[in-house]
Amino acid sequence: MSVTYTDSPNPAASIAKERAQTSFDIDTMNEFLEGGSNQAALVKSLYLQFERDPILTTSTAVYDLTKDQKRELTAKKIARVAQYLEADTPTTFAKRLHLIHTVDPQVGTRIAVNLGLFVNCIRGNGTDEQFKYWVLTQGASQMKGIYGCFGMTELAHGSNVAGLETTATFDVETDEFVINTPHVGATKWWIGGAAHSSSHCATYARLIVKGVDHGVKTFVVPLRDANHDLMPGVSVGDIGAKMGRDGVDNGWIQFSNVRIPHAFMLSRYDRVCRDGTVHSAPLAQLAYSALLDGRVTMVYNSFRFGSRFITIALRYAVARRQFGKSSDGLGGEEQLLNYPLHQNRLMPYLASIYAMSATGDKMNWYLKDIINGLEASVRTADMSQIGAAIDDMKSLFVISASLKSTCTWLTSSLIDECRQACGGHGYSAYSGFGQGYSDWAVQCTWEGDNNVLAMSAGKAIVQHVQKVLKGKKVSGEFAFLNSYKADETSEVLKGPVGNLTTLLATFQTLVGRLSGHANEILGHSSGSWEVISVHQVNISKIFAHTYILSTFTKRIAEVSDFAINIQLTQLAQLYALSTLSQYSSLFLQYNVLAASTLAKVQAEVGNLNARIRPQVVGLTDSFMMPDFAINSALGSKAGDIYESYFNLVKNQNDPSVTKAPYSAVLEKMLNRQDLEVRERSERTEQVLRILGSTDE
Amino acid sequence: MSVTYTDSPNPAASIAKERAQTSFDIDTMNEFLEGGSNQAALVKSLYLQFERDPILTTSTAVYDLTKDQKRELTAKKIARVAQYLEADTPTTFAKRLHLIHTVDPQVGTRIAVNLGLFVNCIRGNGTDEQFKYWVLTQGASQMKGIYGCFGMTELAHGSNVAGLETTATFDVETDEFVINTPHVGATKWWIGGAAHSSSHCATYARLIVKGVDHGVKTFVVPLRDANHDLMPGVSVGDIGAKMGRDGVDNGWIQFSNVRIPHAFMLSRYDRVCRDGTVHSAPLAQLAYSALLDGRVTMVYNSFRFGSRFITIALRYAVARRQFGKSSDGLGGEEQLLNYPLHQNRLMPYLASIYAMSATGDKMNWYLKDIINGLEASVRTADMSQIGAAIDDMKSLFVISASLKSTCTWLTSSLIDECRQACGGHGYSAYSGFGQGYSDWAVQCTWEGDNNVLAMSAGKAIVQHVQKVLKGKKVSGEFAFLNSYKADETSEVLKGPVGNLTTLLATFQTLVGRLSGHANEILGHSSGSWEVISVHQVNISKIFAHTYILSTFTKRIAEVSDFAINIQLTQLAQLYALSTLSQYSSLFLQYNVLAASTLAKVQAEVGNLNARIRPQVVGLTDSFMMPDFAINSALGSKAGDIYESYFNLVKNQNDPSVTKAPYSAVLEKMLNRQDLEVRERSERTEQVLRILGSTDE
Repeated sequence: MSVTYTDSPNPAASIAKERAQTSFDIDTMNEFLEGGSNQAALVKSLYLQFERDPILTTSTAVYDLTKDQKRELTAKKIARVAQYLEADTPTTFAKRLHLIHTVDPQVGTRIAVNLGLFVNCIRGNGTDEQFKYWVLTQGASQMKGIYGCFGMTELAHGSNVAGLETTATFDVETDEFVINTPHVGATKWWIGGAAHSSSHCATYARLIVKGVDHGVKTFVVPLRDANHDLMPGVSVGDIGAKMGRDGVDNGWIQFSNVRIPHAFMLSRYDRVCRDGTVHSAPLAQLAYSALLDGRVTMVYNSFRFGSRFITIALRYAVARRQFGKSSDGLGGEEQLLNYPLHQNRLMPYLASIYAMSATGDKMNWYLKDIINGLEASVRTADMSQIGAAIDDMKSLFVISASLKSTCTWLTSSLIDECRQACGGHGYSAYSGFGQGYSDWAVQCTWEGDNNVLAMSAGKAIVQHVQKVLKGKKVSGEFAFLNSYKADETSEVLKGPVGNLTTLLATFQTLVGRLSGHANEILGHSSGSWEVISVHQVNISKIFAHTYILSTFTKRIAEVSDFAINIQLTQLAQLYALSTLSQYSSLFLQYNVLAASTLAKVQAEVGNLNARIRPQVVGLTDSFMMPDFAINSALGSKAGDIYESYFNLVKNQNDPSVTKAPYSAVLEKMLNRQDLEVRERSERTEQVLRILGSTDE
Repeated sequence: MSVTYTDSPNPAASIAKERAQTSFDIDTMNEFLEGGSNQAALVKSLYLQFERDPILTTSTAVYDLTKDQKRELTAKKIARVAQYLEADTPTTFAKRLHLIHTVDPQVGTRIAVNLGLFVNCIRGNGTDEQFKYWVLTQGASQMKGIYGCFGMTELAHGSNVAGLETTATFDVETDEFVINTPHVGATKWWIGGAAHSSSHCATYARLIVKGVDHGVKTFVVPLRDANHDLMPGVSVGDIGAKMGRDGVDNGWIQFSNVRIPHAFMLSRYDRVCRDGTVHSAPLAQLAYSALLDGRVTMVYNSFRFGSRFITIALRYAVARRQFGKSSDGLGGEEQLLNYPLHQNRLMPYLASIYAMSATGDKMNWYLKDIINGLEASVRTADMSQIGAAIDDMKSLFVISASLKSTCTWLTSSLIDECRQACGGHGYSAYSGFGQGYSDWAVQCTWEGDNNVLAMSAGKAIVQHVQKVLKGKKVSGEFAFLNSYKADETSEVLKGPVGNLTTLLATFQTLVGRLSGHANEILGHSSGSWEVISVHQVNISKIFAHTYILSTFTKRIAEVSDFAINIQLTQLAQLYALSTLSQYSSLFLQYNVLAASTLAKVQAEVGNLNARIRPQVVGLTDSFMMPDFAINSALGSKAGDIYESYFNLVKNQNDPSVTKAPYSAVLEKMLNRQDLEVRERSERTEQVLRILGSTDE
């Protein structure tokens, strides 16, 4: 405590008081959030190692690092993670990497480019032998020997992968591929790890054989030799500073007639024979499955990264007092979170994070099942099994596209709103919001631009409704669309608004009606999907929320602990009703509810905010995110926001240095001579009279 | 041009082609945007000096600077601006500073703290003699001799200024004030310029006389002497890294029994006599008028800063091609901006920026009139004149609160959406979006948190409606509320949706009905305004858009040039209809229009997007923002996005440095020995058998 004249405010007391009133067991709640007690225990044990590890741990000092310092620190952390990688089981490491993504997204990205994108590209596109060689024998899976990057996007092509322009021309004479960047626009761009880290690049290039363009295929192209020197014909550069994730060495790559052996083409589905005959399996569409893992991971990350920032904002809102008189008996002014507007800004986000936890967890298992099923079916070569596995994968493409875009947007808005809810202090780098937002923002763009993904998901859903309208059935996660009827336009949500089953039906109905309406517009147009692109994005968003709500409520139904169940049910109601309110224009427009019901929905959001309010400290504690991981001057568990914030500011900005290094510039300005003197008195009236421009 | 195998894409050709099809005179359009030909000419001449000035000009190199480098560069720029300040007329300098705010917000802020906040605080709170002494004689107005900062906010108090805790205790013995920071929470915090620049602080502190607390008053407290050394009892520190505006040296200040002469209290309205008697004029509320200038400026900045980023995104959207086949005859793929979804994401923002131009300009004049009127009335001491002037100022407080919050939020969303619309390249620091967003974000928080301002504006509007309901009239900008009738609930917008007069009435009606409904809720509650806080924010937003639309349409009516008028009218329609669509839930809920009409509104937004689409290059050229000011790899006038972006990346990140400074860390990791060796083979089966843990 500092020397003080009068009592300081005591924000920690507010947090402590509310922590004590928690009505449920936070360990049990944490197990729900983590998807079971085993996972919860694993997360805890990983946080323990993480915090104590001298290289991997973090602190607010990172917010003062320059880009170059971040790059170096990130490299050191990767080298340290490599040691854990050797010791971990795959499940443990996956969870460890997931936590790294939340605490230090730069490190997470730089690792995931190799272990995720590079390895998955080889897994998805290479033969079993190719996978074994590059990933296991050569060491990509251990970040040892080789380190891969993912050479998909180019300067002039991002979303339209089929339009990439790098070429891989088969030289039948030498049995080699010649990799070439034909012009500046085809320069590989944004390639994470290319600038300084990678030894090899999983390169997406057009296969050209005997002058015929066979479309985009994948090739392993070495970038650097074992001395980490660039290969001949390979030009690589750093693409420099970014909005965030400055620790990631994104680079550009130009290939100038770089020759690779025939065998470096990944040829699980596509292969070129020695004589130049090209064989493309009907499964070539699976070549992009490498991206699925990233999308699914981003849904899970949306939950955990979001939980970090909602914790900060809610703890601050409990600790901080402003304006009105305290209503909690601790004296002083009113807690921010006792204001209905402040509740309305933050509590729906808390509910959304809780809701997303179940979906994030589910998607991870779902993806594993599908990939395993697909690989098993391909090995059996049973075409009906393969067909079913491909259908599953197509569904996952749609669902993950919808969820990736909706969840990453949601978390992006969450961080921004949470920052604003912390007022001026949210703008301090040490609050964590600035870097958090900047790091996060790219999630809405990479590995499938959110609007492009949402359009594609929306299109698939409209196509499902088209099927239903033709009397066919759709299955799996889209089965609810089977009950869509074009002539049913009556209200779904009437009377009491809190019933979760009815709310789910409300969302499902809107997906159907939106899709049906979009399909009608499509029928009146020349068949171009672009006329309904705005609808497609809306359909995707509402579908994602339908999916999240459905998954969340199913998981809640399994919870037998009454105290936990009641909290989760309230959060599900708040999530559903506040989301409904956010998109209320659509619900009203399609008559899924009436304006009078919407008024009830809004009132109920207020009621739920107030009901959940006393449990907010417990509900954020349940994320069990340690202080070092939250890494914010405003969000520590103890809630001592003023003393601790002031101390870290002093530690990181030494007040004994009372003059800036550039002080002379300012002092010279302040102590400058009068203008007349500096002008050598050339413009005085007297001089001007002498020079003749003024009359006597 | 680089060596190339095949033709590069030619994005510049698309821009040039569309520039040529501009159907109106861009100089004339620019004059509209700038509020007349004189202002347009002034802006042009200032940009000319700005670009050529060796210190003040800027480039994408700034995106690679560290915080320390930004601080130093900012100081150099301030010293350079001081020279222009000596030569400029006030009007010229105001415009120069406004442009600086857009091109280099850090420099703008650091100057505005002294010339705006510090000087305005003295102007608003000091006697004429005090103003003359500190601002003119001592040189604050010339950034010479003294340089002030604005000591309002504290660590534990931001929005609630009346709750500040710094004390100024009158010592009747010595005829001095003793300034004190009683505890850590009362540390002055966020004080721009305090860390390194300021010589004096306009300090907001509680006046304590003979043990009685007279509330928050203002005092001039010297921080540093003429050698720039800290005064005794004054502790100052750097609050360190921020989300943005790192060039601004925000600081913290603690006063430990710092004595200042009696005369350093600013005493236009409040004064303490020699014997300790306190006189407070009834006008003491005007003490906060110092903040008005900032708020009004932010409305104007929202327009110009927004025009910078919408220009980048729209030029990129014309130059960039992806997916479908080109429809413009230039070959290749389709231009991004030909996709309806992309139009829908960006064109309404273009329309909003056009609409805000008129309001930004109007507010500047409006503020000047009111301040002058108030000062004149105070000098005459005519209480009825003073009363009228205060009423005007109160109106301006409401209007500027509503506009500041709505416009800064709008521009914040605009920057974020524009970044996302540029895909991955929007995430490059050299696109300008990252720093632009981070710099801008604080506008939603400082000088009145947006939610707090919106609530206060909403409250005032509800109070106006309460008056109307009691049969009284409200005047000025709120006069439209006089036609509000609680029992009128029929649709306003019916039939064709493009009529601007009807659209204005549609918005006005919603303001009335929202306020009336909020007032009803208030009547059913215990009288606490908090129950309608969500409504208050909505009311404020819709009011701001009503005001912007009204101002814009009035200005359009004065435009005789037909080609210009037609463009502006379309933009006004797009602004009104897309804003209506954005808030459509409210319009539907209050039955200002029917769902069937909303469908027409949305269709008409699409039509207007398509109609305005061919003029987009001309409409962004009309902002006449030079390339150096836009300062983006993606937004130059020529539109050569690939070559120029690639060249600047190479210039700022030397590709001949092929290994990172930290390369050894990575190489050591990649070339590490096998785990077994590093573990000294202590865990081999053989050893474990020897050690006895495994069975033979």
